[in-house]
Amino acid sequence: MQQEKTCPQLSIRVIDYTRDRLEERECIELTEAWSWIGRETVTWIDVVGVPEHGELVALGKQAGIHPLTMEDITAPDQRPKVEEFESYIAVIVRMLSARDDNVAGEQVSLVFGENYVITFREQPFQVFAQVRERLKNEQSVLRRAGPDFLVYTLLDIIVSAYLTILDEIDDRVEDLQSEVLVSADRLVLKRIYALKERLVTIRRAVVPAREVLGSLAGRESDLIRKETAPYFRDAYDRCIQAAEIAEYSRDTLAGVMDLYTSNQSNHQAEITTFLTIVATIFIPLSFITGYYGMNFENIPLVDSPWGFYFVVLLMIGVSAAMLLYFRKNGWI
Amino acid sequence: MQQEKTCPQLSIRVIDYTRDRLEERECIELTEAWSWIGRETVTWIDVVGVPEHGELVALGKQAGIHPLTMEDITAPDQRPKVEEFESYIAVIVRMLSARDDNVAGEQVSLVFGENYVITFREQPFQVFAQVRERLKNEQSVLRRAGPDFLVYTLLDIIVSAYLTILDEIDDRVEDLQSEVLVSADRLVLKRIYALKERLVTIRRAVVPAREVLGSLAGRESDLIRKETAPYFRDAYDRCIQAAEIAEYSRDTLAGVMDLYTSNQSNHQAEITTFLTIVATIFIPLSFITGYYGMNFENIPLVDSPWGFYFVVLLMIGVSAAMLLYFRKNGWI
Amino acid sequence: MQQEKTCPQLSIRVIDYTRDRLEERECIELTEAWSWIGRETVTWIDVVGVPEHGELVALGKQAGIHPLTMEDITAPDQRPKVEEFESYIAVIVRMLSARDDNVAGEQVSLVFGENYVITFREQPFQVFAQVRERLKNEQSVLRRAGPDFLVYTLLDIIVSAYLTILDEIDDRVEDLQSEVLVSADRLVLKRIYALKERLVTIRRAVVPAREVLGSLAGRESDLIRKETAPYFRDAYDRCIQAAEIAEYSRDTLAGVMDLYTSNQSNHQAEITTFLTIVATIFIPLSFITGYYGMNFENIPLVDSPWGFYFVVLLMIGVSAAMLLYFRKNGWI
Amino acid sequence: MQQEKTCPQLSIRVIDYTRDRLEERECIELTEAWSWIGRETVTWIDVVGVPEHGELVALGKQAGIHPLTMEDITAPDQRPKVEEFESYIAVIVRMLSARDDNVAGEQVSLVFGENYVITFREQPFQVFAQVRERLKNEQSVLRRAGPDFLVYTLLDIIVSAYLTILDEIDDRVEDLQSEVLVSADRLVLKRIYALKERLVTIRRAVVPAREVLGSLAGRESDLIRKETAPYFRDAYDRCIQAAEIAEYSRDTLAGVMDLYTSNQSNHQAEITTFLTIVATIFIPLSFITGYYGMNFENIPLVDSPWGFYFVVLLMIGVSAAMLLYFRKNGWI
Amino acid sequence: MQQEKTCPQLSIRVIDYTRDRLEERECIELTEAWSWIGRETVTWIDVVGVPEHGELVALGKQAGIHPLTMEDITAPDQRPKVEEFESYIAVIVRMLSARDDNVAGEQVSLVFGENYVITFREQPFQVFAQVRERLKNEQSVLRRAGPDFLVYTLLDIIVSAYLTILDEIDDRVEDLQSEVLVSADRLVLKRIYALKERLVTIRRAVVPAREVLGSLAGRESDLIRKETAPYFRDAYDRCIQAAEIAEYSRDTLAGVMDLYTSNQSNHQAEITTFLTIVATIFIPLSFITGYYGMNFENIPLVDSPWGFYFVVLLMIGVSAAMLLYFRKNGWI
Repeated sequence: MQQEKTCPQLSIRVIDYTRDRLEERECIELTEAWSWIGRETVTWIDVVGVPEHGELVALGKQAGIHPLTMEDITAPDQRPKVEEFESYIAVIVRMLSARDDNVAGEQVSLVFGENYVITFREQPFQVFAQVRERLKNEQSVLRRAGPDFLVYTLLDIIVSAYLTILDEIDDRVEDLQSEVLVSADRLVLKRIYALKERLVTIRRAVVPAREVLGSLAGRESDLIRKETAPYFRDAYDRCIQAAEIAEYSRDTLAGVMDLYTSNQSNHQAEITTFLTIVATIFIPLSFITGYYGMNFENIPLVDSPWGFYFVVLLMIGVSAAMLLYFRKNGWI
Repeated sequence: MQQEKTCPQLSIRVIDYTRDRLEERECIELTEAWSWIGRETVTWIDVVGVPEHGELVALGKQAGIHPLTMEDITAPDQRPKVEEFESYIAVIVRMLSARDDNVAGEQVSLVFGENYVITFREQPFQVFAQVRERLKNEQSVLRRAGPDFLVYTLLDIIVSAYLTILDEIDDRVEDLQSEVLVSADRLVLKRIYALKERLVTIRRAVVPAREVLGSLAGRESDLIRKETAPYFRDAYDRCIQAAEIAEYSRDTLAGVMDLYTSNQSNHQAEITTFLTIVATIFIPLSFITGYYGMNFENIPLVDSPWGFYFVVLLMIGVSAAMLLYFRKNGWI
Repeated sequence: MQQEKTCPQLSIRVIDYTRDRLEERECIELTEAWSWIGRETVTWIDVVGVPEHGELVALGKQAGIHPLTMEDITAPDQRPKVEEFESYIAVIVRMLSARDDNVAGEQVSLVFGENYVITFREQPFQVFAQVRERLKNEQSVLRRAGPDFLVYTLLDIIVSAYLTILDEIDDRVEDLQSEVLVSADRLVLKRIYALKERLVTIRRAVVPAREVLGSLAGRESDLIRKETAPYFRDAYDRCIQAAEIAEYSRDTLAGVMDLYTSNQSNHQAEITTFLTIVATIFIPLSFITGYYGMNFENIPLVDSPWGFYFVVLLMIGVSAAMLLYFRKNGWI
Repeated sequence: MQQEKTCPQLSIRVIDYTRDRLEERECIELTEAWSWIGRETVTWIDVVGVPEHGELVALGKQAGIHPLTMEDITAPDQRPKVEEFESYIAVIVRMLSARDDNVAGEQVSLVFGENYVITFREQPFQVFAQVRERLKNEQSVLRRAGPDFLVYTLLDIIVSAYLTILDEIDDRVEDLQSEVLVSADRLVLKRIYALKERLVTIRRAVVPAREVLGSLAGRESDLIRKETAPYFRDAYDRCIQAAEIAEYSRDTLAGVMDLYTSNQSNHQAEITTFLTIVATIFIPLSFITGYYGMNFENIPLVDSPWGFYFVVLLMIGVSAAMLLYFRKNGWI
Repeated sequence: MQQEKTCPQLSIRVIDYTRDRLEERECIELTEAWSWIGRETVTWIDVVGVPEHGELVALGKQAGIHPLTMEDITAPDQRPKVEEFESYIAVIVRMLSARDDNVAGEQVSLVFGENYVITFREQPFQVFAQVRERLKNEQSVLRRAGPDFLVYTLLDIIVSAYLTILDEIDDRVEDLQSEVLVSADRLVLKRIYALKERLVTIRRAVVPAREVLGSLAGRESDLIRKETAPYFRDAYDRCIQAAEIAEYSRDTLAGVMDLYTSNQSNHQAEITTFLTIVATIFIPLSFITGYYGMNFENIPLVDSPWGFYFVVLLMIGVSAAMLLYFRKNGWI
């Protein structure tokens, strides 16, 4: 797969296409990119990095984009949402990517009008490059469809990333479950909490994304063609599924936690039971030895030669009675 | 019951029927099967196995089936759903079957139009054969009804499978409950978790199936005749019941888990109480023996001939007092 | 109250009435009973026991009743529901009756059309006899109203049975609560679980019955006269109240369970605390006795005549210090 | 405030008013009171106690009140509700009053038509007297408004009683919380349960009252003037607030319960830790004393004059090592 | 930032502005302030402190403000709400401010009509001064917009305060989480409860504020211009986000609490395990010493010179066996 070229500051790329023709510009200025909007062709402006807010608002005004939309795009950690304005629809979602044993979420904003799509993302990630490659293929459905289909394709790739990451998490949760059934290692707790935290990050991306896609799937708008609607419904279904897997993993994780706690207390109980048995057997025996260790002259049997053997038999008898009593109660 | 014949690769079977006539072909090519669609008669194409995706999309185009539907059919682990297109309705559900002490769920897709039903399933299972037998009987209501009634019959058989499996699970849960009341065996925990996991598989099939049937029961569509609607409502009611039993079994299982935990800790408490009583009685007695075992010359009573008897009485008195105190507090 | 006469197999009874006249037949054949339907008068056919399915379907066809309705009636353990067909409304609910310290639920089906009510129940129970008696009274409102009012009266009696049983359960739960506050008997646990199970049976009857009555109360149908509607609303209100009492009893029972667990662990803690105090006081004392029991020649004070008294004072001092420390910490 | 006069049996009082004139009759017969209904003036009939059911139904018929409404009024423990009939609205709520450290709820029924309000309550309580006083003041808004405003005023007083009682409960819950943080007295548990029970009584009045007021506030009816609507909305808002405070107090109480349990088990843990430390230090020391107490001739050091001092040093060393180990692990 | 001037009693300030002109008056009488209402210009009356109720009602009547609105403004601790009357909209929310390690909530009421905004707040706080400064800037959008935009700006500042405080709480919760993973200090519990209480205060402000903003964002009213609607929707989105962060912090805090409890019991378990190991090893050894300390003449080996060495070896063997058994079971 083609590596994304890194530009000096902002990395802005324009792809302009019709069924027959495709032009691409990399590392251009925002203002230059903007000049492509308004042509008859479909224009995709892909912005990586956070542009300067004032410039964006000014450019937005040219394209009929409300300042509030531009504010949402430049502000970090916006809640995923979809908002329809007169001439465009603005979509904010979170892209999830696995990053050294953790999950990172980044804001992706998509603004699309009648013949343009503008995407804003904080960092470069590979998945959008796939779409670019597909666009370059003249046979691709993308080339024959409008901006709404491009938006669907990008959102679908984001939802696929959710499912990939969730599958991995789900595997780990199930590994943990099998492990917990055999070991009660304290390290497991840290891993449970690490997975829990990752699931929180995922849920905070997936749950509102489900709303976003539901809203796009059910929307009647001039900007979403009738032919594209089933695709959005399909992406919506997959996002519901992602949300359900996240829910399910969370429940399983809670079950693993319970199992761990139960195992821990069971482990503890075994140790205590062992102490109880040892102590309960030896305490009476020690009493007997103490009894015959008293400095009285006239302790019965002490002076008898059979005394000692009687005491040993008594000790054996007491121990045996104790053990039988334990067994009868199912304690050993 | 007739055994399903196994074909080389894909097992495709066509049953084409009217009130008077029924034709059946086994192990034919997908393209051949497709040629039956479009006749005036009702055609049921039953595909076992996963067809090649490209071929399906191409054939779908012929019959007016959207590529997205075909993708849903070939992709595994789709969420159960129902989707209506212009000329057909696509239904995806999960068939549940008990398999060596476990529950397996398999995707079943049903696509039906004005005069055809196409079913896709990953593996052969017996229950669809029942419907075939009923179809061959000229008296059967199925022969006089359209494809919607065939779809109802197939879905009803799937819902019946849910209820059968749930009844078995419910029995096991209740067995476990009675067992837990008398024993606190650690193996019970594994069985609880096994049942819990099975219930998760079931719920993931039943809960969205309820939505699917609810949607079919409440749908106004040319493809579902007015006479068939009450049947779909009936299947919906049974699916609600299945979902409620699943819910109820889950609650009962949670109760069994609580009971198990409570039993475990009670068991532990009994052992600890026993230790306490034994230790608390003997600790003072051992002190007394130690006291009279000290190497002082002038311990009172040591030299008296009654000293020993006094000490024995003292020990009996202390033990009796302890036991009385325990009883008074309801500890023994 | 008049005892229900028991007939050879099925017990079928027809009551046919107008404002002025009432005819009653007992232990007749189903076919004979059916012949009363269709007269101008109001006909109540009360069937006790499960009729043969084939016969029912055939008779149903005569009266315009759908085969699915007949299937619901003969199948046991149907979920309570209400379904309106062209010429009749079918209602399925569960009658609850206390039976030797347990609660039994039985399916009651009511099918009513313009001038008939057919009731099906598995076993005879007294409460329907009350309605018969009221019918025989010429002054009764029942005689002047239509089949819908008879249906209301029967459902109202069923809801009253819910409330009676729930009041009894509620009393028992409160008794248990007072008991648990004073005793921690292990038998209490069994009683809690017995009540819990009974509440599950009740809730499974009451919760869907609430839906059924809500649906009847809000329904616009030719079969429910405008004058009867407030009565159905009233029965609905009482059923909501029954469901709320069930919910409340369940919550209280969960509270009793918590209290029991808390009591149990408190009980355990008291025993352990007692052990701790006894052991902690005597362990140092026993050490002292052991110390002076060693076979060294030159243990200080052993040979002094005041040695013994010093040791006794030391022991008293240590015990007193321990006890003071315990008291200071609020442990005794 | 004026004390309510107690009448022989039922205490019935009629207040009939227009903007200029007000007439009041006390301790009259129900029939006499009824005769005021139907005048042009606004009539408030205030009934304390439960009238005979038959008489009520008969009188109801005169005023166009449905027998079901009369049944709801005479039956105790009705669920709060509002029901609109052709010529009147019937409202049932519960009045709460603090009564020696407990909360009592009593049913209050209000039936109001175009120019009358009839209130039924089981026991006399002071708060309605306030409204009477306000009515007697010619300047009062009440005198200029219709029966709907009188109903609002009465309901508002009932909601105010909820808020007063909830504030008191809230204070007690917070007192308990501060107390629990410093003490782990077992009596606290009883107080928690007492408050819990009181909150249940309150919630059972407040939660359905919220529905009642919501229904009145949103209702379009000839009986509720447009000018009165904002007042009902205001009372509704206050009732929402009451329900929220009840919810909040319940949550806090659950937190107090958790804190209590946590404190209890912490308290227990402290005792056990102390035992552990004492036991673990003395058990090895006691072993040493036992070791040198054995009756062997050739135990090393026993015969040496320095043996004893070595043993004492050994004991000190062992104790010190133990204490250091404890401290290192953060156990003391 | 300019310090708010403190006036003798009530601090009332009027700012009257159009696009070109701005007048400001401080510390004037309420009546005087009122005289500005009704001019063509936009008037903002900002009242700090609680005005006398009677005066407010009288003034309200002049401006067409309902007495109920005035009551809501003067009553403390009103639930946040929005209410639309004929000529104005009344909004009540709570301002949150961090105050020495705690969170304080204060009622802020905003009443706005066609050309005025009146704000009431109990105490002066800095944030409104920011808006004043922005108003004084002729370039500000505020100057060109109407009262609805001023209301949006004030509400937006209040929502920003929610987010600031929640971010801080969120940080503290996460600090606590890291801390709990390494230490099990009892003080942590107090801090958990302090944060919990703060979150309750926050949620009681934020959750109803979300409803308030949702209601304003979705409202069709002459008082909210079409151009301002997106701004209210934006503030609504941010308030949803605030509510979600509050929810998330609460969940995390519950997790921290669980972790703390788990740590506590783990800590306890370590101590108990140590006791068990020490006790279980020494109890049999002490029995042996006791055994050879008995005063029998004929205890085997006592008189043998190798006896002592045998016993020492026996003791070492028993200890080693115990330790091996512990290790085999994973107890040490």
